[in-house]
Order: sequence, then structure tokens, then C-alpha cells
Amino acid sequence: MSYKSGRHFLQIPGPSPVPDRILRAMDYPTIDHRGPEFAELGKEVLAGIKRMFKTESPVVIYPASGTGAWEAALVNTLSAGDKVLMCETGQFATLWHELATKLGLEVEFIPGDWRHGADPEAIAARLQADTDRQIKAVCVVHNETSTGVTSRIAEVRQAIDGTRHPALFMVDTISGLASADYRHDEWGVDVTVSGSQKGLMLPPGISFNALSDKALKAAEQATLPKSYWDWQPMLASNATGYFPYTPATNLLYGLKEAIGMLEEEGLEQVLARHQRHAEATRRAVRAWGLEVLCLNEQEHSPVLTTVLLPEGQDADQLRKVILDRFDMSLGAGLGKLKGRVFRIGHLGDINDLTLLGTLSGVEMGLACAGVPHQSGGVQAAMAYLSDTGA
Amino acid sequence: MSYKSGRHFLQIPGPSPVPDRILRAMDYPTIDHRGPEFAELGKEVLAGIKRMFKTESPVVIYPASGTGAWEAALVNTLSAGDKVLMCETGQFATLWHELATKLGLEVEFIPGDWRHGADPEAIAARLQADTDRQIKAVCVVHNETSTGVTSRIAEVRQAIDGTRHPALFMVDTISGLASADYRHDEWGVDVTVSGSQKGLMLPPGISFNALSDKALKAAEQATLPKSYWDWQPMLASNATGYFPYTPATNLLYGLKEAIGMLEEEGLEQVLARHQRHAEATRRAVRAWGLEVLCLNEQEHSPVLTTVLLPEGQDADQLRKVILDRFDMSLGAGLGKLKGRVFRIGHLGDINDLTLLGTLSGVEMGLACAGVPHQSGGVQAAMAYLSDTGA
Amino acid sequence: MSYKSGRHFLQIPGPSPVPDRILRAMDYPTIDHRGPEFAELGKEVLAGIKRMFKTESPVVIYPASGTGAWEAALVNTLSAGDKVLMCETGQFATLWHELATKLGLEVEFIPGDWRHGADPEAIAARLQADTDRQIKAVCVVHNETSTGVTSRIAEVRQAIDGTRHPALFMVDTISGLASADYRHDEWGVDVTVSGSQKGLMLPPGISFNALSDKALKAAEQATLPKSYWDWQPMLASNATGYFPYTPATNLLYGLKEAIGMLEEEGLEQVLARHQRHAEATRRAVRAWGLEVLCLNEQEHSPVLTTVLLPEGQDADQLRKVILDRFDMSLGAGLGKLKGRVFRIGHLGDINDLTLLGTLSGVEMGLACAGVPHQSGGVQAAMAYLSDTGA
Amino acid sequence: MSYKSGRHFLQIPGPSPVPDRILRAMDYPTIDHRGPEFAELGKEVLAGIKRMFKTESPVVIYPASGTGAWEAALVNTLSAGDKVLMCETGQFATLWHELATKLGLEVEFIPGDWRHGADPEAIAARLQADTDRQIKAVCVVHNETSTGVTSRIAEVRQAIDGTRHPALFMVDTISGLASADYRHDEWGVDVTVSGSQKGLMLPPGISFNALSDKALKAAEQATLPKSYWDWQPMLASNATGYFPYTPATNLLYGLKEAIGMLEEEGLEQVLARHQRHAEATRRAVRAWGLEVLCLNEQEHSPVLTTVLLPEGQDADQLRKVILDRFDMSLGAGLGKLKGRVFRIGHLGDINDLTLLGTLSGVEMGLACAGVPHQSGGVQAAMAYLSDTGA
Repeated sequence: MSYKSGRHFLQIPGPSPVPDRILRAMDYPTIDHRGPEFAELGKEVLAGIKRMFKTESPVVIYPASGTGAWEAALVNTLSAGDKVLMCETGQFATLWHELATKLGLEVEFIPGDWRHGADPEAIAARLQADTDRQIKAVCVVHNETSTGVTSRIAEVRQAIDGTRHPALFMVDTISGLASADYRHDEWGVDVTVSGSQKGLMLPPGISFNALSDKALKAAEQATLPKSYWDWQPMLASNATGYFPYTPATNLLYGLKEAIGMLEEEGLEQVLARHQRHAEATRRAVRAWGLEVLCLNEQEHSPVLTTVLLPEGQDADQLRKVILDRFDMSLGAGLGKLKGRVFRIGHLGDINDLTLLGTLSGVEMGLACAGVPHQSGGVQAAMAYLSDTGA
Repeated sequence: MSYKSGRHFLQIPGPSPVPDRILRAMDYPTIDHRGPEFAELGKEVLAGIKRMFKTESPVVIYPASGTGAWEAALVNTLSAGDKVLMCETGQFATLWHELATKLGLEVEFIPGDWRHGADPEAIAARLQADTDRQIKAVCVVHNETSTGVTSRIAEVRQAIDGTRHPALFMVDTISGLASADYRHDEWGVDVTVSGSQKGLMLPPGISFNALSDKALKAAEQATLPKSYWDWQPMLASNATGYFPYTPATNLLYGLKEAIGMLEEEGLEQVLARHQRHAEATRRAVRAWGLEVLCLNEQEHSPVLTTVLLPEGQDADQLRKVILDRFDMSLGAGLGKLKGRVFRIGHLGDINDLTLLGTLSGVEMGLACAGVPHQSGGVQAAMAYLSDTGA
Repeated sequence: MSYKSGRHFLQIPGPSPVPDRILRAMDYPTIDHRGPEFAELGKEVLAGIKRMFKTESPVVIYPASGTGAWEAALVNTLSAGDKVLMCETGQFATLWHELATKLGLEVEFIPGDWRHGADPEAIAARLQADTDRQIKAVCVVHNETSTGVTSRIAEVRQAIDGTRHPALFMVDTISGLASADYRHDEWGVDVTVSGSQKGLMLPPGISFNALSDKALKAAEQATLPKSYWDWQPMLASNATGYFPYTPATNLLYGLKEAIGMLEEEGLEQVLARHQRHAEATRRAVRAWGLEVLCLNEQEHSPVLTTVLLPEGQDADQLRKVILDRFDMSLGAGLGKLKGRVFRIGHLGDINDLTLLGTLSGVEMGLACAGVPHQSGGVQAAMAYLSDTGA
Repeated sequence: MSYKSGRHFLQIPGPSPVPDRILRAMDYPTIDHRGPEFAELGKEVLAGIKRMFKTESPVVIYPASGTGAWEAALVNTLSAGDKVLMCETGQFATLWHELATKLGLEVEFIPGDWRHGADPEAIAARLQADTDRQIKAVCVVHNETSTGVTSRIAEVRQAIDGTRHPALFMVDTISGLASADYRHDEWGVDVTVSGSQKGLMLPPGISFNALSDKALKAAEQATLPKSYWDWQPMLASNATGYFPYTPATNLLYGLKEAIGMLEEEGLEQVLARHQRHAEATRRAVRAWGLEVLCLNEQEHSPVLTTVLLPEGQDADQLRKVILDRFDMSLGAGLGKLKGRVFRIGHLGDINDLTLLGTLSGVEMGLACAGVPHQSGGVQAAMAYLSDTGA
């Protein structure tokens, strides 16, 4: 393949650009995962990852990508035929729904328009109606990677609490962790699912379940078959810094580095940075005269922005032009949004100039692909970024 | 932590030492797993990994360690309550047995002494007795990592064939692939399970199921719940070089490099090298006056050698002395062998001088730890290695 | 030090951003520089570097930065008290002049305004007047890194030829090689000096002398003392792929990779890319209402653009603001230009989006630092880049 | 080229094996050598390198290999025609002598047999005879890389002092620094020359001059032409952490890491480790019935051991057999020792097991090449290493 000068712009909503420090940290020989040096590493990452979830409870680390952690959350807590309440916030909520169904759960799916987050009131209403407490779990996607809409988890928690319904509360923040504000303990989430290749800036290959006491208690009764995903042997081994089967050691090297980097910058600063870049992006989109998919001002994702093209425009063609001419990857429209939208990732290891390079690529791409728009998007983003402190 | 001069000797039977070329190949930014560049990579590794298994059938690549691929083999082909025949060759056979039981299968375990491979005649006898064909699968561990005994898979196949029993034949060669002779198609295996961190010289984090037409047909009837491990969406996506959910992209970079390296050296030469190093190791062990655990000359593993200490000696103490004084990791005795044996890995990216450094460390360790032995093991290995061509 | 999210923008006119492929190529253990594997490497880079200079004559590779190669050119060809003609094109021409003086040469310096390249007519006039052929060498800087002005070497050659003066012609293209059109043989240059950390995209640490037969003949008479820089033992060792003293082996790994990358992209395409990015940059500068330092349209550098600030503005303060707020390094004004100009590097491993990120950083920096300007520079660059094919 | 399994054994007396931590430290993008981040790095390595030389005086760091630092020591302190006293300890002393002669110095060379270090009494006698103080400098090679003999620098210093002769004292410890005991200040050395690719474990490409007040005073009078090597602008720039011309930035990253590693292990422990490995090596050589070249028990090098083959044996053929069959590089006999000796490097980043792998390769190579010897060398080394604490 011929060499393309310069770095590829990977502006999809995950995997996010892996920083050099993490790649170098992973570029060390694998060590004995049964030896004393490993135990130090294991303890360090198991402690550090809790701080990322803002929890005092255990976090399980799987050698698997995020889809595996979705499955793990369900098989550890539920039994065949259990009722689960989910909310149709977009494609990933839909996939989680399909997965649950494949596992033999009975899923009720509160419909959505893919432009809003999960509706706390609708959830409350449904739980209220569940007088015989058939619903065993409420599952919500925090940051919908397919739409750029971030559900209000704290409000969902309040809504559930208002009904005094005993269902478990499970949240997928695969693309939200360490990019969007997330508080496992404060928000009373029972199982939080996440992955490595988004806000944690790692390559894909490890994923997480953050637990609660209630989730652990539920696990004692759950009968869905499980072995790889089983929390119990994990927690038993983790107590001494080890894992029950071979972990993805080199990704754990990277995880240690990633946690260190996020804490050097400061997790709150990291979150503020994501918000600032998201706002700059939305200003660019509006200056172009295009529409941001998310319709609720309170629910804009700090992680990605989904842009809706005018009727008749082909977003996949636009992405192809941008990839071919400007060596930038953007996210495709997924599921029912295919061809209608494109997604700009602005998460992880980026800065103002990378974002502006990104927005420049979009603005030029709109011109090259003949998508009707006004220029001035980059200009608007620059104005915002130079006005707001770094 | 204070710096220890020189490279650690990682002589456990996996993870094996990851060569620089593979680490560097993995040390590149993650790419978009939905983009055209990825499809090239996907097609290349999916084709290449077949050559490692010596199969024309599909090989599924999971973002998971080997334990996950064990589970995958079972959940794709079997249903709750199905009967499975397994052979107690050592700790890993025992763990696979436990896993199958946890998943709700009914496992019959042919007992073994952990010093021999699976017995083809015993398997045949059991299948013969199964006149109503209740046994749905025969599962054998090819290279028992806990004992250094390599079962004779071709003979097991013949034994099964002799009974005309229709059971599936599943083999775990997690620690055998690309180190010990293995032939998925020629030996008529239906599902072969393997992993990345042994003969393939990669870090842990991806694992494999090589399939057969019979296995694929069985999968259509199998009802154990599954989603992450489900072959069908994998095969559907793999057809165009993609994966149904996020793959462990950077490990795939490494896999491409690993296959290239094995084919540069030549797979048959790689296997011969492992045999030669194993023979040199056994000569050292015998010169020390110690016992090789494996009792069948036809079943010595080319991957590792397990050494049985004299009654009253503590193998874990020996390993500790060697780790502390000579910065070398050796494998522990597992399960009922705990403290009785230690295991010398001689697989993957090693050469004569590394092996002799390894054996030197063992010989000195025996002296330092006060284990009764004769010197001359390294000498015997040198004599053999200098007599046999590189 | 606290972690700064995202990649630093290194937009100085060298060192240029080192691409991952080159860093990884260098990240291999050093080999024996007297062994057979090294000879392969040595022959390959010694052949490849000639293609970069467009010469059939030998190119000497020094383990030294560019300043050393300047010195080497002089000490190999000249004797104490020799007369040399140089042209004041900027700071680097001035430094080369100082170096020559320190070595005991008598240098005549044709004055310049730092906004034009070397004047072929002035050189011709001076040589014409040198009727007794006292001038032994004419030394010209091709791409003046301090000003962004590229001298017309072919025209200087013609001017010298017109006078039939026998002086050697030496050219410094430290920052021009593999970024600006350069033709050692076709332009009849006797010694060309270059370095690694500019168009070749390597870290600093090796530098070059491309020779001619005439230069080699002159070397036989030259009496300035020399040992490290001596061409003769270099050429003798290079004949078999070796070096007379320890070379910078890992940088040679990088050089091999760099040449491969430049030839994958195509050297002519590389040069065209630099011209296109330089034009885009100048359009931005003009849209800002600022002045490009170079006054001759034929002499704009494809490597960097030097921007002159309005009287009373402090360019170093501007650069500081940009570094602090946008994590981008720009080049300072050197020598008599200190504080008056800043320099934008657009050489080496960059692409359209990196350049636009760069120009965005400048445009925002001008605003943040309160430098009077008009906005629209990025807009102008985008218009040009989207109109011109990649 | 076909892949050779396992790591190459680079057991030449430099370059020594570069540890992963150093390679990774160098595998970062080059930064602006005029920016504030660089100044931090510059100050840190300029301070740290002093501790390696055990000096409070400045140490100059050149982007050049060791040969350049040899030249630098002379051109900064001497003038054309100056008399210099050198000692023929081996090939490197001979090359330094040649270099000095090329630069126009008048060198007197005290003859030697290449099996002893510099003779303090002979030096004293010569200085005593120099009643009109014509000799301006005494130059001694500390660790002769061609012979494995380490001169007694402290005793040479005492011998000079005994004569009250004012000559400068210059020492080459290119292959001794950070492997053999060396004390610039305590031993009263005026200029110490060293390099990166030996005890400092870096790739080649930077080298050093450690200075004294007396050397700096001498520099004020010295008239040999110089520019690249000139101490004055170096010291001026170094004061703020910078360099007068582009430094080899990525090697400075490595230097920072190297100093950190040596200080983690502890410099005295590093020196003791080298002594222990050297003793183990000599025991192996003697067990083989071969001769160590060094004849003075007080002068055995801790860095390398030179082995003299019996008359009629070809050491280069032996090295070739070892390289081809066991993938190990050993040092060749240089100059008048060509073909008569081979050199085993045991410096830098090695440990007991690497050394034993090395000695195994030599012992097997002796057998394969048909060199008359007794076996038991590795055995002898193992006995010594297991008896002496790590």
C-alpha cells in the first residue's frame, strides 16, 4: 500500500486515537500472570478503574470487548424468562435488546425516536404499572454512540426510586466513561458496563462491569448459564491481584498508563474538555446550517456529535469523500439512520487543533461532496475555542 | 521498583516471550474497524490463521482469552443436558470439564493419572458402549499445559471412527498450535480451540475456534444461550473481512505479523525446532537425575517439560529461588501437582542460547535451593544441541 | 508534568514530526556494526540516500547533526586561508559564514536583505572580478530556514558557468532535501550538505555530504586538519557497506524506512504536496492581512513560511500564547529577525487536516495575543485545499 | 530475510544490548529543541551525566559517536605541533594516536604488548625526562576495548603528580563508563572521553567530554581549528538547558532513561555486577583451557574478556560458526590481534542467564569449530554464579 503522508484523523466515536504513552506502555513483553510482579499490576488497575467509575464497589475487568461486558451484566444477574425493561435510545440500545432476547430474557422496549435519551417518566410509569414486580432490571444506555444523545442517568435513578420498584438498574456507558460525567455510586447504578477504546483511550480488548451490593446479591440467585463471565471467580481472584484465567496483560499495562494520564490531567478537567469540544462542534454544525440529531439541549453528548443531513443527501458518500481526500474516518449512520447522518467523534486524546483539523475536514468534505451548506463552521468553532480558556 | 539488569526469562508454558517484531506491529494506532483498511487486515488474518490450523474451514477469532474459546466451542454446538465425554489428562482438562458442567452439560470424565495422554482405546470402549448415541461430543486436550503430555489426536480420531459413533470431536490445542504438530482437517476435528499467547507468540487477548461442516450443522440445533460466542454473526461478518462487534484490532496487527514470521521460518521448521529443544531439555532433566512427568515416550510435549521433584522437595520454593536469584519465571505445579512439579516452557520465540540460559537457571536453582540432583544437565543439553543441526 | 491531551503540533521548520513508522523502525535493538547483517543495511541506505539527492556520486553519512556536515564540506575541500564566497540569505548563511571563519577560511559575504535568495548575478559579478581565481568555493544555502526563501540553485550554477570560474560550488539544503526540488547532479553541485530531521522525517543525529568528482579531487589537496569528517576512510569503508567508526545504527534503521516511505508516496508527489501546503499557508497569511517575509514570488519556500508581524508586535509573545493555549510550536525569528517574525513549518509528515489545525492555531493565537489581523485565513486555505486535488 | 527464532545475542564489547525501557523512551516524537520542554530535558541529562562520570565539572554532550569525542578532547585543548604522550595499550589507543597525528599533533607513543595497561612508571619516567615541559598532554585509554585490559588511571595520576609535570591528563573511557569504576574528579582527569553505546546501554550517536578547570583554561590558548567540537558555545548554551546546534534529541530521551535505570539499580551495584560477570567468564575460559589475553590480574576488564586461541586456530572462523549456528555476535580480534583472539562482551543490560547462554554458545562453538578445548566452562561459571549472591 502506498504511504499517505501525515497521521490519519480517527474521529469516530471509538476507538478513539490511542496516545503514544499508552501504545508504548503496551509495547513491553508480556509477564507471567501468576507471578508476584503481576499481582502489583493487578491490584493497581483494579483500584484505579474504580476511580474512573466513581465507585467503592468492585469493578470486573474482562478480556473481551464491550459486547461481552453487556452479556456479562445480564448473565450474572438474571435467569431465563426474566423480564427486563429497556429504552430504545438508538442502535446500541437496540443491540443490547437483541442480545438479551437471544439469552432468553423477556425484554420490554420503551420506544424512542433516536433523538432523545431514555425518558425517566416513561420508565417510572412502566414500573408503577408493574405491580407484581415482574420486571427484574431496568437497562439504559448512558451515552448512545449511534445518536450522540446522553441519557440523564441520575434522573432515571430518581424516577425508579420514586416508584419504590426493586428492579436492578443497569447502565451501559461504554462510550461515556472518562468522557461524560458518570457516577456509579452516587447515581445508585447496580451494574455499569463499559469498554476500553473510548474515553480510556486504549485499543479495544478489555471491558468492565462495575457492581453494587444489590447486584452481587442478585447474582446469587441468577441461573443463566455462565462461566467466562462469572463474577464470583473473578472477585475471588481479584482479591489478591490475579485473574481466574489469562488476562489481556498488555492491555492492563495500557490501562495503568491511561488511568495515570487521566488523573494527571484531572478527571474533572477531562470532562470539561469534552464538553467544550462538543459545544465547539455544535457551533460548527449550526454555522453550516445543518442539524444536530439530538433534540434535547440537556442531552447533547460530550463524546460525539451526530449530524443529520438534508433529505436526499447521502452521508455515506460524504464520509467516503472525506476519507479518500482528507484521510479522516467519521462514524456512519447505524441502523435506521444509515446514510442519513454522520457522526463526529471528539473524545479521548484530542486537543483544540485536532478538533479544528477535524472540522476543517468536514467543512471541505461538504464542499467536495456537494452537500448544501454554508461555510463558516470552522470559523465559529475557532471563535468559541479562542474565547474559552484551555 | 528497582531496575533489574537484563531481560526477564519468561519460561512458563505461555504466555511465551513476545518478539519485538510483534510488539512493534501492535504499537500502531488503532484503526476504524468499520473502514476499508480494516477489511484488508481482517481478510488477511482470517485466511492466514487457517494455515496455522491446517484447515480449509473457517476459523473464528474472538476478542477473549482461551477460556472463552473453550466456552464458545460448547455453547455453539450443544444444548442443556447434552452428554459430553472428556478425558482427565491434567488440570486444563479438569477445568474444561468444570466449565462444561457449569454450562449445564452432563460430562463423563474418563479418569487419568496426569502422566499420560487421552487413551484412544478407552474412548473407543466408552463410545462403543453408548449404543443409543447419547454422547454428543468427545473433548480432548491436545497439549496438556499442566503436565507436558501431548495426546495422540490422530489416534483418537481413528478410535472414534472405528466405533462409527456420530459424536462431535473437539480438541483444545491452546498451548499446542504452531508449536506441536496439529492438523485440523486431516485429523477430522470438528472444533479446535486455541489461543494467542503460546506458539503464536502474541500477548493474550484473542482466541480461536476452528470449525468443520459437521460442527456448523450441529450449531443449527444447539440451544445453549449465546451471543458473544455465536458463530453465525461472526461468519457472516468475516465474509467481508469485518467482525460483528469491536475486535481486538491491535492484537490482529500482531497476529498478521506472527503468521508472517512463522511462515518466514517455515511452520515445519518451527515444529522441528520445538522438538529439538524439548529433547535437549529432557536430556538435561535426566542428567540431573530428575524425573520427567510424562511417562509415554510417544507423548512428550514439544512445548514444555514438566519435572517431578523427589518426594519431600518443594517445587514452589525452588521456583521462588530461581525467580529471586535468576529472574526467571517457570510454571508452577497445578491442581493435584501443586508443589510437586515445576514446568519449563520452551515454546515460541526462543533459540538455543535462550534455552541454555534457561537450563542454567534451573541447574543453579537446584543447587541454591538444595534439591538433590547431579550437575551436568546443561552439559548434556549442549552436547545434544551442538550435535544436531540448527 | 501534567498530561496535555492530544498530540503536540510541531510546526517548526525542523525537526519535523517523526512518523510512527520511522519511530518503530528505530525502536529495534542495535546490531553489530561489524557483522554481515549491518552490511546489508549499510549498502541499502547508502544507495537509497543517493536517490534522495538525485546523484550518482557517493553520499557520506555522518553520525552528527547538520552543523557537522557543514564543517565536513569545508574541511575536506579547503585549506587554511582559502577564499570562499558566501551569500547572506539569512541566519543559517550567517552561521555557516561564522563557522568557515572559525576554521581559518577567508570568507567574502555578499550582503542580502534576508528577504531574497542568493543573487546569481551578484555571484557572477564577483567571480568575474576574481581574475586570479583566488576564490576556491561558492557556498549557497538552498532553503533558508530562517526566512522561508529558497535560492535558485540552477540559476546560480548557470551564473558560475557563465564566468568559467573554477570554484567549487557547495550548497546547504539541510532543510530542503526531500521537501523542495533538489538535483545534485543536474545542477552541478560539488558538495551538498543536508540533515535528517527535516524532509527525511527522522530525528536529528545524522547528516550528509553528497559529493562530486571535482570535490573529491579538491579533497586530495585540502589541508585543513580533519579526522572525524574525513571523506576518504568513509568512502573506503562504505564500499562494503560499513563505516570507519561506529555509526548511529538506529537512525540508519529509520533512514531506510524514511526512504521507503518517500518512494512509496513518490518523491515528485512529495514535492508537489509541499508546494500545495505552502501555497495554502501563504493564502492564509494574506487573508490575515499579514506579510510573507519572502519578497520574490519565485523563491517562496515549500518547506516553511515566515510571517512578518506589523511594527510593534512581538512575535515571540505570540508564539508563547500559541504554545501555552494550543500546544503548538512555531519557529522563532532568528538573528536580526528576532521578535519580528514567526515561522510556520509545513514540511515532512503532514497532511491537509494537520495543516488546517496548524493554521487554526495561528489564527486563534493572533486573536488571543491581540495582533491586529483579519479573520478568514483558515477559510482561504480550506478553499484552496478543497479546490486542488489531493 | 527469513526469520530467526529468538533474540540475537549481542555479546560484543559495544554496542551493548539496548534494553526495552531505553528503546521505548526513544520511541517518542522529537520535540522542539528551542522550546521550554526541551530545556527541562537538557538540564536533567546534563546534571545526570555528571553523576555517571563522578564529576562536579561540566560534561559536554555531542551528537556524534565516540570517535568525535576523541577529536573534541584534542582540538579544544591543543595547538598544531603540540607534543602529546600516549600509551600503546591496544587498537583503540593506536587509533587515537593516528587521529592525533592527523590533526597535526606530535605524538610520542610508549610501546606496549597489548596485554597490559598503561604503565604508570613508564609515563612518569618520560615526563621526568621532559625537563622543558614540551609535553602538553598525557592520553590514556582506560578500558581497552580491543584487549580487555583496564589501565590503572588512579596510579597514572599519582605517577604524573610525582613528576609535578603540568601536562593535561586525558582519558578515554568510551567502553568503561558505567561498567568499570571511573572517577573523573577524584582521579584528577582533565578531559574524559566517553560514548553512549556501552555501559550507558544506548544506541550509538552521542558522546561525551567531561572537563576540568585546567582543561577549560587550556582551551583558552588552544588554536587547533574547531567549530562543531568547540566547548565554549556548548557550555554557554548548556547553562540554560539548550545546545548551540540541533542535538540528537531522541538519544537524549534515552540518556535520561538510562541514567534513571543505572541509579535505580545503583551505580556501585552495576559495577559489582560487571566484576562478577567478568570473573565468571574468566573461570569459563580457564576451564576450557584457553588463555585470557590480559596478563595482569589487577587489570582484567569488567566489560569484556579477550580470549587468545591456540596457535593455528582461526578466531574469525570460530566467530562465524557461532554467529551462523547460535545467532550470537562476538567481538573480532582487531589490528595485530586479528584472527588470534575473540572478545566476549559482558557489559550493559545483561544478567546471569544471558551470560550463561553466551558462554554456552562459546563452548558449543568451540566444539563445532573444532577448536581444541576442554568442556566444563559453563559448569565453572555456573558454580561461581550460584555461589556468589545476586
